[in-house]
Amino acid sequence: MIRAIGLDADDTLWENETFFRLTEGEFCAMLSDHAEPDHIASRLIDIERANLERYGYGIKGFMLSMVETAIQLTDGAVDGRTIARILELGQDMLAHPVDLLPGVERALDDLSDRPLILITKGDLMDQERKVAASGLAERFAAVEILADKTPEAYARVLSAHDVDPRDFLMAGNSLKSDVIPVLELGGWGIHIPHGPTWVLEHAEEPDAPRFRKLAGIAELPALIRGIEQG
Amino acid sequence: MIRAIGLDADDTLWENETFFRLTEGEFCAMLSDHAEPDHIASRLIDIERANLERYGYGIKGFMLSMVETAIQLTDGAVDGRTIARILELGQDMLAHPVDLLPGVERALDDLSDRPLILITKGDLMDQERKVAASGLAERFAAVEILADKTPEAYARVLSAHDVDPRDFLMAGNSLKSDVIPVLELGGWGIHIPHGPTWVLEHAEEPDAPRFRKLAGIAELPALIRGIEQG
Repeated sequence: MIRAIGLDADDTLWENETFFRLTEGEFCAMLSDHAEPDHIASRLIDIERANLERYGYGIKGFMLSMVETAIQLTDGAVDGRTIARILELGQDMLAHPVDLLPGVERALDDLSDRPLILITKGDLMDQERKVAASGLAERFAAVEILADKTPEAYARVLSAHDVDPRDFLMAGNSLKSDVIPVLELGGWGIHIPHGPTWVLEHAEEPDAPRFRKLAGIAELPALIRGIEQG
Repeated sequence: MIRAIGLDADDTLWENETFFRLTEGEFCAMLSDHAEPDHIASRLIDIERANLERYGYGIKGFMLSMVETAIQLTDGAVDGRTIARILELGQDMLAHPVDLLPGVERALDDLSDRPLILITKGDLMDQERKVAASGLAERFAAVEILADKTPEAYARVLSAHDVDPRDFLMAGNSLKSDVIPVLELGGWGIHIPHGPTWVLEHAEEPDAPRFRKLAGIAELPALIRGIEQG
């Protein structure tokens, strides 16, 4: 029996990564006098990777890493107007409406016979804003915003909700964050790919009996029925 | 009976605001060619206030607001080196060791006969880092990091831990965040002032039967015994 279902939010319930990629495109265009777009994007990723441990996930860290990249790429010659524009780009992201992915509301209806836990990572305030703006908050027994989606963090969440990891299923678009850590704990890890994947979220597809891959969240209710009918 | 005790973290268990004030001092000194320190500090607070809803609390938002203030105060003429130095100041804050306040460990020992919940707000990753670095994590039944310390947020925490607000006591250095919202819910709100208070945390001392003010956390165990002995 699956006693509780965890669902990722960004790129599982609503669009997210595509806004980062659009902003990155504008950022590269702004600095095009200084370097080729590919070079800029690769410097940005290096700086994001180096900053991950201090900033964590989310838009504010992305903004700070863009500012740092702009300074480095221009040897400090970047002007205040460009930095101001970077801040605006980030602030626009923080104010962006929430675009639900197709089939989400219907799938949540179909899954409503057991506790649903929204499990996401990123900026606390921004994630809370998106949950509220999504109109989906009432569908969830709990909303858990984590600094990182490690096996330890999932174990803490499951312990707080009194759910055995073996009775838990997590579905999301990131193998690294949504699937692999839950498989490690003995639960079910369901991969629902969506759009581009951020380089720092890349992972190999696991070879595990409790791993499944779906084309969309609409397939999740039937998958769970199938698992339970064994 | 007080069934659970909530404790704030920043400036209740360890130093915090004083590092923000030191950084602000360095920030004002960096821009001293452009304006008087008081004027810079007051522009920074205005920008922090305007950004609070989008950035929330914590060091990353503070960094972004310092960058924005530097651009505005210089009409965009700020150079890349100055912006780079602002990022370094913030990164230093994010790496700063945790300095426990006097009497904290002893007080936590004395309070260990009931569940202690650490309740804080700010950047998720930074707060988790500080809890780990404090060496105090094991003393707490739970660590709750909130986007904001509203009555609703406290009510959610207490409901998750199955604690009636009337049986809950919260202690911390901020009237606005630690004391008043808990009094509103019917719990005990204990004010333990420490050092400078950030302008955006200012609030009037409440006039409520369950409000108390202490000189230090060392006085908390005796206060609780006094409350329970009626």
